[in-house]
Formats: sequence, structure tokens, C-alpha cells
Amino acid sequence: MPVRIIDLSHPLYDGSPSWPGDPGISVAEHCTIERDTCCVHRLSLGTHQGTHIDAPAHYLKGGAGVDSLPLERLYGKARLLRIPRGRGGRIGRADLLRFDEHLQEGARLLVHTGWDEQWGKEGFFLEGPCLDLDAAKLLAERKIGVLGVDMATPAADDAEAVHHVLMNAGVIIVEGLANLGLCPDEFTLVAFPLRFEGLDGSPVRAAAICQ
Amino acid sequence: MPVRIIDLSHPLYDGSPSWPGDPGISVAEHCTIERDTCCVHRLSLGTHQGTHIDAPAHYLKGGAGVDSLPLERLYGKARLLRIPRGRGGRIGRADLLRFDEHLQEGARLLVHTGWDEQWGKEGFFLEGPCLDLDAAKLLAERKIGVLGVDMATPAADDAEAVHHVLMNAGVIIVEGLANLGLCPDEFTLVAFPLRFEGLDGSPVRAAAICQ
Repeated sequence: MPVRIIDLSHPLYDGSPSWPGDPGISVAEHCTIERDTCCVHRLSLGTHQGTHIDAPAHYLKGGAGVDSLPLERLYGKARLLRIPRGRGGRIGRADLLRFDEHLQEGARLLVHTGWDEQWGKEGFFLEGPCLDLDAAKLLAERKIGVLGVDMATPAADDAEAVHHVLMNAGVIIVEGLANLGLCPDEFTLVAFPLRFEGLDGSPVRAAAICQ
Repeated sequence: MPVRIIDLSHPLYDGSPSWPGDPGISVAEHCTIERDTCCVHRLSLGTHQGTHIDAPAHYLKGGAGVDSLPLERLYGKARLLRIPRGRGGRIGRADLLRFDEHLQEGARLLVHTGWDEQWGKEGFFLEGPCLDLDAAKLLAERKIGVLGVDMATPAADDAEAVHHVLMNAGVIIVEGLANLGLCPDEFTLVAFPLRFEGLDGSPVRAAAICQ
């Protein structure tokens, strides 16, 4: 059966949008077809560049790196939670409880606020909507497997606490997803990090496979 | 139904094996948990580092970059071709014709020679087995979709000609696959490049999804 695949990743290019204070991304010519018969580029970027995965090692000392996350966790049935929010909006426990039946152990939940439309615009990184600490605690209590968001981060007010609550519960976080607005309520998610040994994060080519 | 996923990628780390003359890979601390509450690294690497995809732009002027490759091409049923070869071995047209029925338009074919066991050892990049030009022409005639290999390159004697023949026929090349020896004859391949705009290659987390 032919599948339709929706790209859930933002593009990466020289100077593409980066979290303030992160290394940023640069792309430089290394070999060219004219001179060397083939074209190769040199990339410089941070582990949290663009659409990416946070491993527990991002916030937890001794936490797992991206290469230790089981691939089975990052491939399979995913559920979209449509929670429209704009600049500075908050998502609380009650907002998530509207999707009570989907807050299951191991669930892959992707929150679509619509904020990905602000990608590349002023305030995308620091002024987006986010989960409050109580909402994060609910997801941790339910032991969900993956939390994906279309914002640059699920946390704003209390970034460290929200990440700690989620990561201590084993939740894998995918940040900066694109195109969730094009997705059906359920699909197969693929979001494999590169196999960086022990590292705190990795850009991913996240995708929604729709049958 | 639970799936089993086999990682087809080699690990990436500071100084991990790189094609001679390529940029190589370095990993540097950027933020630390102790100092900054979270850990972030800066990566420097080439577009053909580790297990990776060659886009047509690698060898063809005006060729498609990795971001233009349809994701549907890089997800789906794949077939393993077991053709054991050692140092300097050659794969010719007759070797591929043993798998005649699988040399179909759009097919995802992964050649397992066993050379991936030499990864990290002397000669891995420049002394591996490869396809000869006539074998490449056969795959081009058959219009296969993806050619994956466990060597660092499918081509040695005539790298430019082999890449041109394959790329002009629209074949996407995946190089440096690991663990093909653990795979069944057929499985679902995932090998999505990062969404680098217009670039000639991208590291990938290739994986075999086995039902």
C-alpha cells in the first residue's frame, strides 16, 4: 500500500534559526565538482539545532545519550493533541485531560499549538506557548513515552523543572516540530536521532507516515 | 504488533572514522549542566560523515540536494543482497543477476558484503570491495530506487563514473551501513537525511524495521 509521508522537520541551512546562545549553524564548501569531481560541505551546528531530540543527558547528570534511546521508542503509533495557543500561551493539566484516554504509558504524544508558523520570526524561541509544571507532572505520572511539540521548547517559566520532571520519568522530548497542522489525529511517527555517542541531543528528520 | 528495529548506522563521536580528505568530525562542549543547568555540544562534521546518504548534488551539477529526495523513496520495503566480499573484491553484473527478480524499478536494495566488520580498521575507506561499472549500469538500467552498501562507497576503480551512472538514473545511494548481517532478507528500511537545504549529503540514522 502506498504511504504518504509528512515532513515534520524545519529546514537546516547556513544561519537557520537557532536558540539564542546555542552554537548556531554554518555550512561551508569543502570540495566542489569543478575542482574535486564531487561536492562536499562542512557543517557546524549544535546538538539542539532545528527540529531535534532532547536526550536525558541534556538535563540529567549521567542521563542517557541519544544513542542509548531505543529506536522502538521513536518509531510507531503517535497521537496528535490539538491545543491551539499563541504567544505566551500556557497549557495546563486540564488542557491535557481533554485527551485523557490518550495519556497512556509509552504513548507518543505530539502537541500542535500552531506556533510552528512563527518559525523564523521574532520571538519564536523565547515567546512561544508552553506547558506549565503541573501539566508536565501529569505526563510524567502517566509515564508517556514521547512528548513532541511544535514550539522550540515545552517549557518557558520553569524550563529546568519541566525538563527534570519529564526526563526523570523517561519521557523523550522532540522539539521544534513542523507541519503538525497537516497531520491526521493518528499516524506512525519516525524520529530517529543520529547515533552520537553519549550526546545530549541530535537534530532529527522527524516524519509522519500516513497509511 | 511489536516491532524489532535493527540499527544500521555506525556511531558518531569526536574523531570517529572519516573518509580521507573529508572534514572529519569533532564534538566540543558548549554548555554544561554544572555551569548552565543543561548540556549542549557543538558538532563539526562533513556531509558524508559516517553512515550517510549521497544526493545527486554530490556528483551532478544542479543535482537534487538531500532535502529534495522524497521521503517515500527512503521508507519502505527493502531487500538484502548477500554478496560476501573481502578486501579489494569486485561485484559484477553476474553477481547482481543472481538476484534478478529483485532488480526492479524503485527497489531498495542493500548489498551486504561483510565489509562493515572492517569499520574503524586500516583500509576500511580505500580498500573495500566495490561494484564495477558494468554492475552499476545494470542497476541504472533497472531503475532501482535506492542502493545501500556496507562499504564506505560502492565505487573504487572508477568512482566518478559509477556515481554518475547511478545518479543520472535517479538512484539514491546510502553508504557505510552497519549490521546488515543481522537483518532478514526483507524488512522496512528507514533512511531519512537531515533536511539540509540543497546539500550533497547527510549523515543518517538508517534502521531496519522487522515485523
